Amino acid sequence: MEAILSSNLKSGDIQALFVGNVLGDFSEGQGMVQSFAADEIGAKNIPASRFEGACASGTMAIRDAFMWVASGFYDMVIAGGVDTTSKMGTALGTRTFAMFTDGHYEYPSGLTFPGAFGMLTHQYSAKYNIPLARLKHQMALVSVQSHKYGQHNQLGQLRNEITIEDVLNSAMVTSPLQLYDCCPFSDGAAAVVLASEEMAKKLTDKPVYITGIGQASSGRFSSQKEFLPRLRARELSVKQAYDMAGIGPEEVDLCELHDCFSIASIIAAESLGFAEFGHGGELWEKGDADISGRIPINMSGGLKSKGHPIGATGASQVCDIVRQMRGTVEPQRQVDDVRIGLTDTLGGDGIICNLILKRGW
Amino acid sequence: MEAILSSNLKSGDIQALFVGNVLGDFSEGQGMVQSFAADEIGAKNIPASRFEGACASGTMAIRDAFMWVASGFYDMVIAGGVDTTSKMGTALGTRTFAMFTDGHYEYPSGLTFPGAFGMLTHQYSAKYNIPLARLKHQMALVSVQSHKYGQHNQLGQLRNEITIEDVLNSAMVTSPLQLYDCCPFSDGAAAVVLASEEMAKKLTDKPVYITGIGQASSGRFSSQKEFLPRLRARELSVKQAYDMAGIGPEEVDLCELHDCFSIASIIAAESLGFAEFGHGGELWEKGDADISGRIPINMSGGLKSKGHPIGATGASQVCDIVRQMRGTVEPQRQVDDVRIGLTDTLGGDGIICNLILKRGW
Repeated sequence: MEAILSSNLKSGDIQALFVGNVLGDFSEGQGMVQSFAADEIGAKNIPASRFEGACASGTMAIRDAFMWVASGFYDMVIAGGVDTTSKMGTALGTRTFAMFTDGHYEYPSGLTFPGAFGMLTHQYSAKYNIPLARLKHQMALVSVQSHKYGQHNQLGQLRNEITIEDVLNSAMVTSPLQLYDCCPFSDGAAAVVLASEEMAKKLTDKPVYITGIGQASSGRFSSQKEFLPRLRARELSVKQAYDMAGIGPEEVDLCELHDCFSIASIIAAESLGFAEFGHGGELWEKGDADISGRIPINMSGGLKSKGHPIGATGASQVCDIVRQMRGTVEPQRQVDDVRIGLTDTLGGDGIICNLILKRGW
Repeated sequence: MEAILSSNLKSGDIQALFVGNVLGDFSEGQGMVQSFAADEIGAKNIPASRFEGACASGTMAIRDAFMWVASGFYDMVIAGGVDTTSKMGTALGTRTFAMFTDGHYEYPSGLTFPGAFGMLTHQYSAKYNIPLARLKHQMALVSVQSHKYGQHNQLGQLRNEITIEDVLNSAMVTSPLQLYDCCPFSDGAAAVVLASEEMAKKLTDKPVYITGIGQASSGRFSSQKEFLPRLRARELSVKQAYDMAGIGPEEVDLCELHDCFSIASIIAAESLGFAEFGHGGELWEKGDADISGRIPINMSGGLKSKGHPIGATGASQVCDIVRQMRGTVEPQRQVDDVRIGLTDTLGGDGIICNLILKRGW
C-alpha cells in the first residue's frame, strides 16, 4: 500500500501484481498468496503471479513486471515480495530452506545453506591461497560494515553495532562460519510500482529506470563445480544486465548484493566485477566497499543487519536504491549522488537475478 | 525435451524457461525446480522462473512466456509445468492442497476443495432451482463424457469407460460429490515452445498463435460471495482473452476447461460463455459439449480422465489443443477442423487463467 499511495495512485490503478514468496506454504499454510494479496490491497480480479526462486524471488517478480510493461500490454503494475519466516524459527527454517538445494543429491546428504557456504569458505581459502585467519578477518569486516550502516536503517531488523571481536567470538554455526557471519531469517515485505516511461513521468519528477536485467539458473552446485567457489551463474546474469544497460561495473555507484553469509558478499562482489577473483575481501579491508569508497556495498545493512525476508529481499534492495537516488534514506547511510545502482540476489543453489537501476533526473 | 526436439530445436536454442509447479516443495522436497530443470534439459544458465498459482500454474507460465516474447527481448522460450503428486497420496495431497484456500478463514474451518465444490453444488441446485437429482445426473454425464474420450488418450491416467450408474454408485466423498465426480491427483509434465512469429514460421508450417490471454485473481470465496456459485474471476479473465483475440465464445471450436469436479465443468462452461447461467449442464444433456456438438469440451478426457498433474495441467491443455489443430490426436477423439481453441484453469479459491489459441495455417 505504501508503494501505491506514495506513487499518488489508488489500488484500482494497478493493472497487474507480481509477488515473490518462498515459504508461505510452510510458514503460513498459504499457497498462491498473490490472489489473496490482490484482494486485500483492493486490486482484486487483476492478473497476479507468484514467483518462487528462493531468495531471488522478489527480484524475479520485479524483473517479470518489467517484461510485462515492456510488452506494451500493461503500463501500471506493482511488484515485490513477502515472507514471514519468524513463525518457523531458525532451526526449522534452515531445515525447510534446505529444499532449495538439489533434492536428489545435496539435500539427502544433509546439506544446508550454512553448510554449503561453510564449504565454499574453505574452498575459497584454498583456491586463492588466503590463510583462513585472514579470510575470516575479511569476512568479519563485511558483517561489521553491514551493521555500521544497518543500525541506522529504520526498517532494519538487527540494528546494533558490532565489532570484529563480536563476530570472531560468536557461536560456531558450520565451520568456519560463525553466527555473525550469517544473516537472520526475517519477516518483511517490499514493493515497487512499475510504469511505462510515459506514465512514470506523469506520476513523479524523480523516476528511476530499470535499464538492465539478468538472470541465470544453474542447477545444483555440482553443475558448476569447475567454477566454485565462483558462482558462474552470477557472472552470466550480471553480464546480461550490464550489456543491456550498456555499462560496466565501474559505472555502478551503489550495490545491494546478496550477503546471506559474509563469505557470500566477497564471492558476489568478485563476480559482479568489483574485484578480481580472490581479491573480493580487500574491498572491505581497504574501504572500497564503504560509504565513500569506490563501490559502496549494502548501505541498507544488507541481509545481515537489515534482515532477510526471503521473498521480499530483492524488492527491498530495489526500494533502498531508489530511496538512495532520491536522497531520502537516513543521513548516516546516504551515499552522495547515486546515479546507477545494481541489485543482486542469489536463490538457493544457483539462481542469480540482477537489476540495474538508473536515476531518471 | 519432446517439445524442444519436435520443434526441431536443441536445448541450446532455448533462451528462457517458465515452469508451473505447485507441490514440488512438498512432494519431492524440491523448491525452485526451474533452476534444476534448466540444468537437466541442457539449457542451464538461462533465465528460468517458477510460477505457483495452484492449478492455474501451467497456464500462467505459458502466459508469462508470451509476455516475454511480446516484450521483444526474447524470441525462443519454453514454458510448461510439472507436478508429481502421487508421492503424497490422495489424503495427504487433499489436505496439503487445502492451503490454496484462504489460510485465515477457510483452511482453519476445515475447508478442502472437495468440500468447497460440494457446497457450490448445493448452492447451484438451490440458486437455479434445479433438483439435486437432475443436477447429479448432469454432473454424471460430464464424467461419463470425459472418460468416453479420455480412454483413447495415450497420455491419459484413468483410461476406462464409465457409465452414469458407475458415477452414481461410486463412494461418497463430500456430499453430494461422489468419487467419480472428482478428478484424481496425477503425475505429469507438459511443455510448449513459444517463439516470435518470425521464428515460428521458420520452424514449422503449422504454427499456432496465442491470440488472447486473461487472468483474474479474486482472493477467497467470500470475496466473491455475491456471485457464487459463479466464479466472477472467470468471467473477467475470459473477457480479457476474448477482447484481446477479438472473438466471442461462439467462435471457439474446442475448449479444454478445468473439470476438477464435475460441477466445476458446468460452472466453468457458463462463465466462459457457452451457456446461460443455470443451464450449463444442458450442454452435456443435449450433446452440445460432445465431439460433434456446438462446443466440444475436454476431448483430452479433462482432469477427470486424462488426469490432473497440477502444475502441468494448463500446459497439457495447450498441448492437446495444438495437437487437435494439427490433426494428430487419436482418431476417436479428433475434432474436425479446429481453428480456435480456448483453455481454462482454476487455481485454488479463485485464480483463473485463460488462453485463446488460433490455428496459423
